[in-house]
Amino acid sequence: MTRIIGIDPGSQRTGVGIIDVAADGRVTPVWHGPLVLLGADDFPQRLRTLALGLRDLVAQYRPDEVAIEKVFMGKNADSALKLGQARGAAITTLVLHDLPVAEYAPTEIKLAVVGRGGAEKTQVQHMVGLMLGLNGKIQADAADALAVAITHAHVRATAQRLGVNTRQAWRK
Amino acid sequence: MTRIIGIDPGSQRTGVGIIDVAADGRVTPVWHGPLVLLGADDFPQRLRTLALGLRDLVAQYRPDEVAIEKVFMGKNADSALKLGQARGAAITTLVLHDLPVAEYAPTEIKLAVVGRGGAEKTQVQHMVGLMLGLNGKIQADAADALAVAITHAHVRATAQRLGVNTRQAWRK
Repeated sequence: MTRIIGIDPGSQRTGVGIIDVAADGRVTPVWHGPLVLLGADDFPQRLRTLALGLRDLVAQYRPDEVAIEKVFMGKNADSALKLGQARGAAITTLVLHDLPVAEYAPTEIKLAVVGRGGAEKTQVQHMVGLMLGLNGKIQADAADALAVAITHAHVRATAQRLGVNTRQAWRK
Repeated sequence: MTRIIGIDPGSQRTGVGIIDVAADGRVTPVWHGPLVLLGADDFPQRLRTLALGLRDLVAQYRPDEVAIEKVFMGKNADSALKLGQARGAAITTLVLHDLPVAEYAPTEIKLAVVGRGGAEKTQVQHMVGLMLGLNGKIQADAADALAVAITHAHVRATAQRLGVNTRQAWRK
């Protein structure tokens, strides 16, 4: 059994999704939800809220590995900077707990969860609920975080089936 | 006496400059240098190197306050994302130590160190050496970090002279 924490970083809300993956690749939900950063008065305080929130979740749920979405930015350098800061804060908090971090591109996540790299965001969210047996609507950022965690669970399971050293396989 | 740690974040090299500022506003150098992140094999590991390096410096030199350059990005969203991640990692490490963080725009730094908001980067570096009585060339990123620390020292001294609550004044 491996516990994976998936992260969907954002400077206003960071999604977190924690799942357990069994040796046969089966996934079960543990915890999910958004960490809301909007209330904080300045940007450093927002990053602190994010870091402390993640630290509490790591202390409580003790994940083994981290999965995070790789981001490709469009034209807006200002939003790229803000997102980068949130992403940097999340990764830093987790690597300081000695957790290995795997990154997945959006198309890899869609492929793993829906089966098509060009799937819609709403389809991904719907499939996440079905795969984890969660009833009702999942908050959007939390659903994205669960999706990247599921992707990592699948990649791990495949790598183990093929006898690949997973650590090497996804730590590229 | 207040100890200030100045940070010039970068995803390849992050400059650090630590100075002491006396009640009369006089500044003396404590430590400066670049934290080199290039060697690490992947980006999360780079952020870890940065966070652990800063953590060690905080443990050894116990700064009271942090000063960091505010960044405004041009057109390149990809470099904004990378810089944002390094900036987020640095700020997170320091706010987790409960240190207050002040941000200064490049023009504010040039004005404080050279006296002209439009000064050249090399002039800033030259003045930093003179103000701190440091002989020889200072590594560029370390000099920028010392410059933002000096700026914070000046702003603090002015605020105290005017009887302004410094915490409020620069924590905007």
